[in-house]
Amino acid sequence: MKGCDSKVLTTDTINPNIINIEYAVRGPIVQRACELEAGISQGAISGFTEIVKCNIGDCHATGQRPITFPRQVISMMSYPPLLNDNTLPEDAKARARRMLDSCSGHSVGSYSDSLGLRVVREDVARFIERRDGFPTDWENIFLTSGASEAVKYVLYLLSTGETGDRRTGIMVPIPQYPLYSATNAELNSYQINYYLDENNHWALHIPELERALNAARDHCIPRAIVVINPGNPTGQVLSRECMENVVRFALENRLVLLADEVYQFNVFQPDTHPWVSFRRVLHEMGPPYSTQLELASFMSASKGYMGECGFRGGYCELTNFCPAVRAQLYKALSARLCPSVLGQAMLGCIVNPPSENEPSYATFVTERNQVLEDLRLKANLMSTTLNSLPGMSCNTVQGAMYAFPRIQLPPKAILAAEAKGQKPDFFYCLRLLEEKGVCVVPGSGFGQQEGTYHFRITILPTLEKIKYVVDCLKDFHTKFMATYSD
Amino acid sequence: MKGCDSKVLTTDTINPNIINIEYAVRGPIVQRACELEAGISQGAISGFTEIVKCNIGDCHATGQRPITFPRQVISMMSYPPLLNDNTLPEDAKARARRMLDSCSGHSVGSYSDSLGLRVVREDVARFIERRDGFPTDWENIFLTSGASEAVKYVLYLLSTGETGDRRTGIMVPIPQYPLYSATNAELNSYQINYYLDENNHWALHIPELERALNAARDHCIPRAIVVINPGNPTGQVLSRECMENVVRFALENRLVLLADEVYQFNVFQPDTHPWVSFRRVLHEMGPPYSTQLELASFMSASKGYMGECGFRGGYCELTNFCPAVRAQLYKALSARLCPSVLGQAMLGCIVNPPSENEPSYATFVTERNQVLEDLRLKANLMSTTLNSLPGMSCNTVQGAMYAFPRIQLPPKAILAAEAKGQKPDFFYCLRLLEEKGVCVVPGSGFGQQEGTYHFRITILPTLEKIKYVVDCLKDFHTKFMATYSD
Repeated sequence: MKGCDSKVLTTDTINPNIINIEYAVRGPIVQRACELEAGISQGAISGFTEIVKCNIGDCHATGQRPITFPRQVISMMSYPPLLNDNTLPEDAKARARRMLDSCSGHSVGSYSDSLGLRVVREDVARFIERRDGFPTDWENIFLTSGASEAVKYVLYLLSTGETGDRRTGIMVPIPQYPLYSATNAELNSYQINYYLDENNHWALHIPELERALNAARDHCIPRAIVVINPGNPTGQVLSRECMENVVRFALENRLVLLADEVYQFNVFQPDTHPWVSFRRVLHEMGPPYSTQLELASFMSASKGYMGECGFRGGYCELTNFCPAVRAQLYKALSARLCPSVLGQAMLGCIVNPPSENEPSYATFVTERNQVLEDLRLKANLMSTTLNSLPGMSCNTVQGAMYAFPRIQLPPKAILAAEAKGQKPDFFYCLRLLEEKGVCVVPGSGFGQQEGTYHFRITILPTLEKIKYVVDCLKDFHTKFMATYSD
Repeated sequence: MKGCDSKVLTTDTINPNIINIEYAVRGPIVQRACELEAGISQGAISGFTEIVKCNIGDCHATGQRPITFPRQVISMMSYPPLLNDNTLPEDAKARARRMLDSCSGHSVGSYSDSLGLRVVREDVARFIERRDGFPTDWENIFLTSGASEAVKYVLYLLSTGETGDRRTGIMVPIPQYPLYSATNAELNSYQINYYLDENNHWALHIPELERALNAARDHCIPRAIVVINPGNPTGQVLSRECMENVVRFALENRLVLLADEVYQFNVFQPDTHPWVSFRRVLHEMGPPYSTQLELASFMSASKGYMGECGFRGGYCELTNFCPAVRAQLYKALSARLCPSVLGQAMLGCIVNPPSENEPSYATFVTERNQVLEDLRLKANLMSTTLNSLPGMSCNTVQGAMYAFPRIQLPPKAILAAEAKGQKPDFFYCLRLLEEKGVCVVPGSGFGQQEGTYHFRITILPTLEKIKYVVDCLKDFHTKFMATYSD
């Protein structure tokens, strides 16, 4: 690059793993969307008047209103004179006081323990116990800056820095959430792709795990398997039988199980496809699984009904980890000091929401149920509409916040993409953005079976906006297919 | 370890770099302090009634009150109905509205751009321009979770993963803040220690830099030099002449300059030892320095007069970085989504405080000056008292938040420490904790010349508490020296 020849740092001399990182959720399509957005505000764009960002699970960005209770708690913790405000409810005040009491100097401006405020870690433990019916030790729980930080630290713990066929191998579902591929690139771990079965609602089959693991043994030392449930970007909820099989597979093959369960509140067909935690399955299976399998499970304040991404609240629970290993991980976390204290407080409100006899309960339940019911409607509308389009198919969205439809791209479209040096699904998504202002992420950013093409679209915009998006999609897709069909 | 033989992860199989991480600021002495604190609350400890934690630069934990203005802004951003509260000032409301307007969906619950809210990045740029007299581009500034995250990402960018004598070499002052040694351990970078001159107020001498660099050339590829100004733990403020020499040294030796300037507001003798930024020095030196030297400078919301550690606000400004390298770093940052939005808002208030014609100005100035004046008094009291003790000497604290006295440990004390398998300064600090409840960090956690012994003590407790600490130290030190003198 011009002017860079004399620099110490060039793209040839920086950490080469960085070059390999890809994070499509904020990749080139999104950058183009931001340019178009700027163009709109300057009156330079015709054809649409806004960019609808369906690229990222960012609930509040697309119109979801915050749940009142935690925001009241946070405001009082930030500015304690508000504890005397008569218009704020007593239960919110009590939560704010309780968490402030556990902050050093009663201030959210002090560092917490590196692993988080003890009172929040204890509340997380009680939340898990209520959810699963098995007690847990609060000292197995550490709080992080979103679940992402926890995932990165556990993958870092697993990577040994060895090279060649001694590299750490991490099994990852395809399609996957690109945090995993990006972090594996960052750590130079070997990613062992196992494919979910699109024809069976993105089911996870054990023979496929075995195939992937055997194929990888010459290239790495397999050490962990990642499971995302409910699935991102795939939206399936795993059956208990499948989860039991994964648990057996992991223990038999000496793999640590990384359970990404950040969408555990986003379950839209709870009667037919209920969600249970891997931790609960493990414990109900009994020994040796409940006593042996090393499990790290991740949860976040960013998803669910609250969607408080900007607070960066998250936690990880370690089950069956060797205490000396836990101590090493905790030591590594201490050098980054602590996660945001208000992010911890947000998480504290989520795991300890208003209870039935408290004044904020009714509002809380109404707000929460409204969000979840809206999401359920939008999940249904999205998959139904996508399935109605010729050349497009989409599994029902059982959970999480995304649809991941498959597009049957005509050969002419694939050639047109290749002529531009673009992946075919990227070409499709860029055209959708340029023509309709709808921003989605190409399937290649998540991984997909060779020769298949998808995109990920969130179900987060308001119902009215989703209807608009669906109309845009219909119109664009019909014209696109007509243009590139013979 | 018992019960861990069958685990996938043991201390023999995890990432070996983790084993090498040390972070003494939260190390074994602090863990013991927490145990004692629990013991006090159970009535099981005699000799003292509280633990005074002088181990960490955690202002609010030791009684400093938050500055009102940013807290008001944060509370309204958290719970926007407060924007209609008549008791909150208009300028705080305007700041809250302005930052909320730049949040997607007008909510602090949405993700910001990976690099931070644009409005805050622009305000940081204006702050830097006012401070230095040279304009800067807001796109060179990225916001992070405290300065720590920024430091870690830049060190990560610099590390190439190569081994043996091709490892990345990072020059670090000794004594240093252990974030640097911990991150170098984490990344397996080779740390090139250069020693500050304790006999000359911890001066930084160029011949020592040359010695260290030459000695390291057989062991690594030197790529960067870290300078901490004002010094942590050493409290000196670098002279402009010294800074110019460092700039020349870095450019001549093709090193990136990492300027840790998080204590830039904590300067206690501004007339005789004024602080200037490396960026300003670079620009005032002119070409080739102003156009060539790659500089990353770090700032934080955690220190200064505000001390808002728990918010995890920080930024890094890149000067003269190759645009393609900047783009790679920014891509790597995108996979961690974004720093805490309220942490960004806190930083936004710090770089854009109330101005003279605004209603909050008078209170803001009073609060800020009170904190800084208190720190100045405490810095002076601490070094004066420490110097009055036989067998102890301490440079004046010109800046930052710490004193780093040297203790002349008698040979008998060194033998007693060795008999316990402890480093002599660790032995001293543990005894001080056990006998007086005063928690400080041994000099070995920061690095020190072979055969010298120090500890780091913060000047953060209230003036009254500092007087108590100083009395404890006097009493303990006198008895300790008497016990171990021949």
